[in-house]
Amino acid sequence: MIDESFASLRAASGIAALCLAFGVLGAASAVARPVTVNDLLAGSTAQDWRKPDPENTLYLQLPGGRVVIELAPGVAPLHVANIKTLARAHYFDGLAIVRVQDNYVVQWADPDHHRPVPAGVSLVAAEFEAEKNAYARFEPVRDRDVYAPEVGFLDGFPAARDPRTHAAWLAHCYGMVGVGRDDPPESDGTEMYAVIGHAPRQIDRNVALVGRVLKGIELLSTLPRGSGEMGFYVPPEPPVPIISMKVAADLPEAERTPLEVLRTESPVFRAVLDQRRNRRESWFKFNPGHIELCNIPLPVRAIPANH
Amino acid sequence: MIDESFASLRAASGIAALCLAFGVLGAASAVARPVTVNDLLAGSTAQDWRKPDPENTLYLQLPGGRVVIELAPGVAPLHVANIKTLARAHYFDGLAIVRVQDNYVVQWADPDHHRPVPAGVSLVAAEFEAEKNAYARFEPVRDRDVYAPEVGFLDGFPAARDPRTHAAWLAHCYGMVGVGRDDPPESDGTEMYAVIGHAPRQIDRNVALVGRVLKGIELLSTLPRGSGEMGFYVPPEPPVPIISMKVAADLPEAERTPLEVLRTESPVFRAVLDQRRNRRESWFKFNPGHIELCNIPLPVRAIPANH
Repeated sequence: MIDESFASLRAASGIAALCLAFGVLGAASAVARPVTVNDLLAGSTAQDWRKPDPENTLYLQLPGGRVVIELAPGVAPLHVANIKTLARAHYFDGLAIVRVQDNYVVQWADPDHHRPVPAGVSLVAAEFEAEKNAYARFEPVRDRDVYAPEVGFLDGFPAARDPRTHAAWLAHCYGMVGVGRDDPPESDGTEMYAVIGHAPRQIDRNVALVGRVLKGIELLSTLPRGSGEMGFYVPPEPPVPIISMKVAADLPEAERTPLEVLRTESPVFRAVLDQRRNRRESWFKFNPGHIELCNIPLPVRAIPANH
Repeated sequence: MIDESFASLRAASGIAALCLAFGVLGAASAVARPVTVNDLLAGSTAQDWRKPDPENTLYLQLPGGRVVIELAPGVAPLHVANIKTLARAHYFDGLAIVRVQDNYVVQWADPDHHRPVPAGVSLVAAEFEAEKNAYARFEPVRDRDVYAPEVGFLDGFPAARDPRTHAAWLAHCYGMVGVGRDDPPESDGTEMYAVIGHAPRQIDRNVALVGRVLKGIELLSTLPRGSGEMGFYVPPEPPVPIISMKVAADLPEAERTPLEVLRTESPVFRAVLDQRRNRRESWFKFNPGHIELCNIPLPVRAIPANH
């Protein structure tokens, strides 16, 4: 889901050059080629990356493969606890993706509303905003935003905050995962969704966001759109089955997907941000000078073999 | 691609109620239910809608069905002329979708670079901004933007402008269609793309946008992602064949797709904008108060039988 090499909108010509990595952060090439995000990442060190906690990582197993979701227990602890209890009770195994709305969300739940909710899971208070200590952990970027006074990152996730109220909250960028609810503000985690379109930031602070897809978003974004209202599948459209949804820590290490996420507090990430604000590649004729929160790449990679 | 009824992020409960249209603009219901976008559209008149000109409408025929694209000759006349010449010379028929990059673009072109470009088509000057008269036609909205001093609509397309330079340009929202190019600013229209992810506004004014998908975007957004760099298909991945790309006017009327687009200058559209800025539905616990350009719905509908 990261497009750090998308400078060209023409054909494959020049791709090899674009993807050549310098291996040294900020090094100048013989032809003074501008530094790309790939260059910056190639110059990163092991310390610039963090390994998501398997205890707070979900594997959503679909017929097409595994979707890896990093949870945000520091932002939505009640919902994350519910979701882990549900996963460990095999609540989602055999349920289905019930809704795929183009340019909006994929949603998974119990299509028949028949499955009993396991003990220990009940409606919990709304977690539209993080607990108050989160405000201080927030890492602001200087770019403007349409929906919030300040945007940046919270525990590695795209987020926003309001200096007037000292509230901080996660932002509905592409790939973010949340929990559906009915009209009351409470929810229990038995319905989950992932954003597969333009960031619907208008629902920020209206639902509990609980994490982000680190790998496999294309398994969700390419699903057939539902023909019902709001993209719900309606007969004879078959819901997409969920083989299982598990907590990564419950799998033997050999069966886990080894991933690292670039630390948002690392100097390399700040360099990536600057590179994306100010496009120095020759393809760019107009330099945007800004970056919108949901256009900031949050690099994820397979853990290199020597780490 | 319009999601005017997406208030609920839970299951299908309440959908019937959500989709009941009043039939009268702004009428109050017995239960004082807030007005929805569907209500507003149900209260519109024939004069609130416009029929895209068949001479400036493209039909991109894929194995899965027809993608309808409205062109913007008032913004990118040179590229639109090239594209229509290409379509009429059957240039795209039998070519392919060569690139599908998740959360970014679908691109179509000649995968082998073998097909001769027809007479009358050559590289034309960059049309990153519209001609100067476009500035006065621009309809601003009052909402903030990250990338431009002002945003709004130009000839019915999402757009931006700069009061300092009197420049206006189309914006890379979901579903917008543009022409790829190499490093030089000129392009000829033989490579086209559509946005299928979060709006890549950083490439505004870096490529010529030529139109917007009115119908069938899901035929593009659900295509398998390419595994090559930047989402290019690489063997053994088969490129998706283009059956044909035609100008709608060249088809008998009975074979056209009859669509209408809500006029951005209509009072109904302004009411839609206000409804989307200020969410009064009971599901919304936090009112965003703003709307970002690319989250503004641009309603398209089949032409009602009695029009």
